[in-house]
Amino acid sequence: MKALVHITLKPGVLDPQGKAIANALTNLGFQGVNEVRQGKYIELDLPDSDRASAAASAKDMCERLLANTVIEDYRVEIVDQT
Amino acid sequence: MKALVHITLKPGVLDPQGKAIANALTNLGFQGVNEVRQGKYIELDLPDSDRASAAASAKDMCERLLANTVIEDYRVEIVDQT
Repeated sequence: MKALVHITLKPGVLDPQGKAIANALTNLGFQGVNEVRQGKYIELDLPDSDRASAAASAKDMCERLLANTVIEDYRVEIVDQT
Repeated sequence: MKALVHITLKPGVLDPQGKAIANALTNLGFQGVNEVRQGKYIELDLPDSDRASAAASAKDMCERLLANTVIEDYRVEIVDQT
């Protein structure tokens, strides 16, 4: 099973990287970009053979390593191997 | 319109950050994690009012700033503002 993990800053947490991207886009001539938020996207190739246990272990990985749950939210999506 | 952009390393390009995550997960006791790939996830809040022009400008932004197209792939998804 493959787990696709999105890690984003919680709303309200300042995102200087996103701000830098927004400024760079404006300098390149893209007008009116209101807000940019940058997060992380992680693809995990897990050994679990059913979706429920894959989702549970991906969630556990997020809590213990991948996300800083004080300032970040995470979202796990399980897909069949392609 | 909101554009959700996923930027991932092309298949075959070495991903040391992903390897580091895989090692850290193994050290934490998660066995059998085959592969980890880390990418970027960017949310853009665009002024365009129709999907086609939002997709076109997001693609342009990827080509010119967000992605290094030599080693990275990108995927753009347009969603209605929530």
